[in-house]
Amino acid sequence: MADPGDRERRTGPIGVFDSGLGGLTVVRELLRAMPGERIVYLGDTARVPYGIKSLDTVRRFAMEDAAFLLRHGPKLVVVACNTASAAAVDVLRRTCPVTVVDVIGPGAAAAVEATAECVGVIGTEATVRSGAYQRAIRGIDPTREVHAVACPLLVPIVEEGRDPDDPIVLHVLCDYLRDLQRLRPGALILGCTHYPLLAGAIAKLMGPATVLVDSARATALEVRRLLCDTDALRPDRDGGHLRCFTTGQADRFARLGKRFMGEEIAWVRQVGTDELTADGPAGTEQE
Amino acid sequence: MADPGDRERRTGPIGVFDSGLGGLTVVRELLRAMPGERIVYLGDTARVPYGIKSLDTVRRFAMEDAAFLLRHGPKLVVVACNTASAAAVDVLRRTCPVTVVDVIGPGAAAAVEATAECVGVIGTEATVRSGAYQRAIRGIDPTREVHAVACPLLVPIVEEGRDPDDPIVLHVLCDYLRDLQRLRPGALILGCTHYPLLAGAIAKLMGPATVLVDSARATALEVRRLLCDTDALRPDRDGGHLRCFTTGQADRFARLGKRFMGEEIAWVRQVGTDELTADGPAGTEQE
Repeated sequence: MADPGDRERRTGPIGVFDSGLGGLTVVRELLRAMPGERIVYLGDTARVPYGIKSLDTVRRFAMEDAAFLLRHGPKLVVVACNTASAAAVDVLRRTCPVTVVDVIGPGAAAAVEATAECVGVIGTEATVRSGAYQRAIRGIDPTREVHAVACPLLVPIVEEGRDPDDPIVLHVLCDYLRDLQRLRPGALILGCTHYPLLAGAIAKLMGPATVLVDSARATALEVRRLLCDTDALRPDRDGGHLRCFTTGQADRFARLGKRFMGEEIAWVRQVGTDELTADGPAGTEQE
Repeated sequence: MADPGDRERRTGPIGVFDSGLGGLTVVRELLRAMPGERIVYLGDTARVPYGIKSLDTVRRFAMEDAAFLLRHGPKLVVVACNTASAAAVDVLRRTCPVTVVDVIGPGAAAAVEATAECVGVIGTEATVRSGAYQRAIRGIDPTREVHAVACPLLVPIVEEGRDPDDPIVLHVLCDYLRDLQRLRPGALILGCTHYPLLAGAIAKLMGPATVLVDSARATALEVRRLLCDTDALRPDRDGGHLRCFTTGQADRFARLGKRFMGEEIAWVRQVGTDELTADGPAGTEQE
């Protein structure tokens, strides 16, 4: 029954990339759902953020990020960045030799499942402009109303480290959520990996009639399902681990990443942005 | 008297680089002060912003940006980005074969000249953390008190296109300027090329006792002085022009850049971030 690829299919790591630190909220959910998995993460912190840039530029970066991960022999690649998912998942699926999971499909499905009413989406400028969530939701339910709002200041606010109950955070949230508060969607998708850190404040402003959907959790469950279906899930008892690469400074990544990961990050290495496009071996091969 | 380099010394362009669009406020002042000059500008919009990144990362990018400009045979290079000036001007001066002008030295000198009292500085996280303005001011006047405040949200606020009298802009400015309002500095340096777009609101909050210092103007006058001293200034009647390279999308650069430049930008070409490090010829050589 076992073909030669069987062992690799189970033992290879899960590759995850993001524009920076936000994707660690997805990693956290992946390890919660699959504690036996090994994860190789690339955070492109030198070129962060992607959300304010053109879709062309984001697509180019996403291709480079995925190419770097592929050099680590992953059994599956997760695009843990909403903007990169919106801009590049189609081209990544066409060009990658392994399954590519984005955060938008699972997030959209979870929102449609959570409510029969209209769905709200908040995200970066690039994510909202791409229309990816709108398309994904209407792909599941063509009659569903979707209201998407770009919230460009939320990423820098989270990265500045402001408390969710800081008056400026509340002021900015009120400004962005004004129309959505009036529309009262049945579900609101937090369409950026930074937004779960503001979930408490957003929930309070939207009220109890709106369910918040965190794409990170939905994505982790989708990855688990895919690995189960292909008998590629590592047993929990194996004990998973996380190795992080960053295009910025390693100690800064470890220090700031802790907030997104919810715990210390023990293994971080720097990688040059020029290495993302190089054909040579990646960091791990030299270990 | 004329040596073989004389002609190049006068006819070569002024090279200017910035992390993105903000440096166009410096270009505007350069062309106001020297209408006959030709300018080659590189905006690294694909990797913008620099101000939230480690000084190591910023230094690496600045070296690549300058190397790209040098392929256009400039007579002088302007680092039109406060963060890159703070992180990299020393290494650029050591390694570039032409004069390198930063925005911090001229800004610091203008502030010391403007007041005998204490000086305030606002800038990005990286600029303030570097201590470059503090050192530059104390280099001129060792006893001068300097108060520097990092304002990470101001760049994304300007880039979002909010009006200076938007309630959120005022709320954020009040938050950052609280201590400086109490200290009443004689001069406040706008230590980031984005901040002149908020100058009206900042002036109102600081009151008439504080002079605002825009490094862009001071830098343009310094460049003019240097070119005059070396007999390298092009006569105004020659009619200057501006050619822009961007690592992002050219049409997006032209559209958003207009706000910083104050007028249409006619000539923009895209250049890949991989080309910044490549040894091959740059865009213009192929025209």
